Amino acid sequence: MNKADISTVARLLITCPDGPGIVAAVATFLKDHGANITDLDQHSTDPLGGTFFMRLEFQTPQLDLSSKRLEQKFNEDVGKPFKMDWRIHYAANLKKMAIFVSKYDHALLEILWRWSRHELAIKIPFIISNHPDLQQAADHFKVPFHYIPVTDKAQAESQMLALCQDIDGIILARYMQILSEDFVNHFPNRIINIHHSFLPAFVGANPYQQAYDKGVKLIGATAHYVTKDLDMGPIIAQDVVRVSHRLSAQKIRVLGQYVERTVLARAIKSHVEDRIIVDGNKTIVFDLE
Amino acid sequence: MNKADISTVARLLITCPDGPGIVAAVATFLKDHGANITDLDQHSTDPLGGTFFMRLEFQTPQLDLSSKRLEQKFNEDVGKPFKMDWRIHYAANLKKMAIFVSKYDHALLEILWRWSRHELAIKIPFIISNHPDLQQAADHFKVPFHYIPVTDKAQAESQMLALCQDIDGIILARYMQILSEDFVNHFPNRIINIHHSFLPAFVGANPYQQAYDKGVKLIGATAHYVTKDLDMGPIIAQDVVRVSHRLSAQKIRVLGQYVERTVLARAIKSHVEDRIIVDGNKTIVFDLE
Amino acid sequence: MNKADISTVARLLITCPDGPGIVAAVATFLKDHGANITDLDQHSTDPLGGTFFMRLEFQTPQLDLSSKRLEQKFNEDVGKPFKMDWRIHYAANLKKMAIFVSKYDHALLEILWRWSRHELAIKIPFIISNHPDLQQAADHFKVPFHYIPVTDKAQAESQMLALCQDIDGIILARYMQILSEDFVNHFPNRIINIHHSFLPAFVGANPYQQAYDKGVKLIGATAHYVTKDLDMGPIIAQDVVRVSHRLSAQKIRVLGQYVERTVLARAIKSHVEDRIIVDGNKTIVFDLE
Amino acid sequence: MNKADISTVARLLITCPDGPGIVAAVATFLKDHGANITDLDQHSTDPLGGTFFMRLEFQTPQLDLSSKRLEQKFNEDVGKPFKMDWRIHYAANLKKMAIFVSKYDHALLEILWRWSRHELAIKIPFIISNHPDLQQAADHFKVPFHYIPVTDKAQAESQMLALCQDIDGIILARYMQILSEDFVNHFPNRIINIHHSFLPAFVGANPYQQAYDKGVKLIGATAHYVTKDLDMGPIIAQDVVRVSHRLSAQKIRVLGQYVERTVLARAIKSHVEDRIIVDGNKTIVFDLE
Repeated sequence: MNKADISTVARLLITCPDGPGIVAAVATFLKDHGANITDLDQHSTDPLGGTFFMRLEFQTPQLDLSSKRLEQKFNEDVGKPFKMDWRIHYAANLKKMAIFVSKYDHALLEILWRWSRHELAIKIPFIISNHPDLQQAADHFKVPFHYIPVTDKAQAESQMLALCQDIDGIILARYMQILSEDFVNHFPNRIINIHHSFLPAFVGANPYQQAYDKGVKLIGATAHYVTKDLDMGPIIAQDVVRVSHRLSAQKIRVLGQYVERTVLARAIKSHVEDRIIVDGNKTIVFDLE
Repeated sequence: MNKADISTVARLLITCPDGPGIVAAVATFLKDHGANITDLDQHSTDPLGGTFFMRLEFQTPQLDLSSKRLEQKFNEDVGKPFKMDWRIHYAANLKKMAIFVSKYDHALLEILWRWSRHELAIKIPFIISNHPDLQQAADHFKVPFHYIPVTDKAQAESQMLALCQDIDGIILARYMQILSEDFVNHFPNRIINIHHSFLPAFVGANPYQQAYDKGVKLIGATAHYVTKDLDMGPIIAQDVVRVSHRLSAQKIRVLGQYVERTVLARAIKSHVEDRIIVDGNKTIVFDLE
Repeated sequence: MNKADISTVARLLITCPDGPGIVAAVATFLKDHGANITDLDQHSTDPLGGTFFMRLEFQTPQLDLSSKRLEQKFNEDVGKPFKMDWRIHYAANLKKMAIFVSKYDHALLEILWRWSRHELAIKIPFIISNHPDLQQAADHFKVPFHYIPVTDKAQAESQMLALCQDIDGIILARYMQILSEDFVNHFPNRIINIHHSFLPAFVGANPYQQAYDKGVKLIGATAHYVTKDLDMGPIIAQDVVRVSHRLSAQKIRVLGQYVERTVLARAIKSHVEDRIIVDGNKTIVFDLE
Repeated sequence: MNKADISTVARLLITCPDGPGIVAAVATFLKDHGANITDLDQHSTDPLGGTFFMRLEFQTPQLDLSSKRLEQKFNEDVGKPFKMDWRIHYAANLKKMAIFVSKYDHALLEILWRWSRHELAIKIPFIISNHPDLQQAADHFKVPFHYIPVTDKAQAESQMLALCQDIDGIILARYMQILSEDFVNHFPNRIINIHHSFLPAFVGANPYQQAYDKGVKLIGATAHYVTKDLDMGPIIAQDVVRVSHRLSAQKIRVLGQYVERTVLARAIKSHVEDRIIVDGNKTIVFDLE
């Protein structure tokens, strides 16, 4: 999406009890206020008594109200009556996503490279790492780099939280430290992690070695929101690649990295384009691909 | 979809010039007449001056009009004003799909098996073949079988057209005769063919031998609507499978058949669930998978 | 493989401590006795101190010894000196594979259909089921069907073992009863099961419901040899298919069945073509695809 | 493969008329001269009268001859008698692969990044480009960069040939100029190109636009050796990705680039690890993955 598009696109995400008339109410509201719907996707778990999810993209140039007033009116006219849990994002307000990384560079570089080519519409305010190794990578892309070793976890997290005061979310691009429940609670459904296995298989450490020992014929990667339970949060995206007896655990790891970086990038894209609604411990992803 | 669902679901497919207010108009109309929208999918080629496509599923039990009156009123209130090309299908009216087949049974059996398990919501009024071989397969599934050899093409087609007076569409399940332009024109976008290659590669005869000679590393199958130009009609679905030097042309053919049957079945499902809108020589497929 | 090929092909499978000279010894032996090698595949876990695995196909028409004498001589000249664990299979001796099935027909029908088209070179002496439902399917393919309900497990297994006196292996084509350790021990690495998940995820019952609840974006199927530990035996083949929020648990199950039948068929093919060597709890599969 | 391995591994590639005794002869020769076979792969088009292809990896530390003498003796004892077309590569002699690129950086960066992480065992003596844009990328990886605009094709190629005097091969990483037949003839089966479509579909220019207009449901990329016929040389590797109506031609292009870079990298890896034998206009690729 080029800069002109981004500056005028708004995205409305809705979750509410399903029932008749929701689409009519929302679409009519938007039409009445000069918003032209350019994309719409929805899902219902059960038209009778289930939950309804919707994502709309609309153009804002002809709006007859300020965004603040529009949101107030939407709440009065549609949101409250339909008991909606809703939010509007303005695409021009790029999400500020901090990146945490340890030693492996493949996922980090993939994000930085796509971001530098405008394929990820985000701001990257800084990178935090518990190792100094990737300073050079950060410098190359002109992104501030903070080396925060984790010898004293509470103190390290305190530093990190201070830096993260003003961000919208965090990308764990193979950040190998486990964040505390307290830290995680500051960013509900806003920390995206890439786990190097096809969850729920091989949670925890050394999943490639686990996969090799198990003798699976496919390995994978999973991007998910981080919750207090390790590798258990809502899954956003997954992919796999074939392996065979010919590949050592080391070769499996190399192959897996290509899947990790792709899956993580895809998940971030879905997140920053406001394509994801979390439902319990699962995600509805209104994707293009 | 179980029988109760099918009996009350209706599907509205719309193509029209894009512009503001379409979704509001359609959704409001349906709400006003007691139709509960249970699924909605749309696509726009360009919000300013492009084409808009939409598919809605709605429940009919609370409609305040007969379907005939509803359609009239829709045309007056929404269809004409928005210059829509639209149609409503009632899921309870299962499409009558005749199947044409030659000698290979894999695609035919896949369809018959899925149909017998209620995974394809269609009626199969009869099977036509230019060989007698598959009579037994038809008998096993209790489907009328017409052996129509094609020595005199015009005469054979005349027979086939007579049988096809009352059908909704035709499935070419590896039917190896080329239908005349006249025959095809009787069923625009209602004849689905499975071509055993990844189009547009390897059109025409012996695509597996062509693929083997070319040394491709993937082979595929393509389901498409039949037009007067051989293997050139709007593509509905495609899939591929890996091959290598280890596979002879014969082994490639065996492997390819599994892809053919799956791709054809998927295309038929999309078609009979009214998920496809043809746009020029391409398809918009509002799929679940 | 056509009948002429099968009648003259022999397959030699070898496992031994790796070291220099193994290929030379085996190849020279075969050449000296008039066996023409037509295919060869090998794998070493570590040339220094690891394990060596090899599969050879060779033609038998010009052998200068009877198969019995050949095997004796091979053991003396090559097998013993290299401390080999080896066996020769003659492709003309089609493996007798019994099929166990419960109520679901998709995996069973896939096997029967491929077998009837000579795409699976096996004999199917009988089908055993704990339900009567699939009698008709067996009859259609003219395969003896034994209905053995499992009210008294020990007694049922006793009956089954009696029938299985003379078979080479068992295919569990969605056979939902858990075989006892004793039963399993009669057929080490000769019972192939299809589990309807991507192991090691979702072991045990209702894996599709588990997958749906977990919110995974891919589901899969795994074919493996049965051991005393449920769903834990050496994995032979796996595959996945994409799913999304749009699919209910029921729709996921339907989609998964297509993967199950394909993965099971592929595993059986590898097994009966003597392409698998079990190494601990993993498999080396010398495959074509 | 770590540096110690590379320094002692040799690879023998053989093409010859098939017949009995080849494996025995080769394996015995190697054993007799102290070469320990660590990997072996072969393929026969037809044991009776067909062509035989083999790739062996063997360890050299215990060789009883110099490599020059070994090759002479191999030719006398095995090569000539079996009418072999053969060559030995020493893995320690990394192939010098020049990279040609135009404006798009995705394929180039993928190669440079994998090379810098020792995932591609090659030397990159220089990069040639007909645009100045990617000078910075080359500098970052400390690879010499030659900007050679192609206003006068003969003169540009003359410059390029002069630079390429001493290289082993050329990687066209989205190099958009068509090399002359004369240039190509200097490097038979040693120029690897990535074409951004699934060949033989969409040869020539703008394949993504062609794919978009055609309405295919999958797009792909193909790596192949360059011959005098544009996009017609022996195919080495291919892969695809799903697309739908939701993706514009531009979005298709972005998605396709990820496939291009992966397919090209895989093809280069196969080439530099001496896994490819060209047979007519096809390749035998003895791959790990």
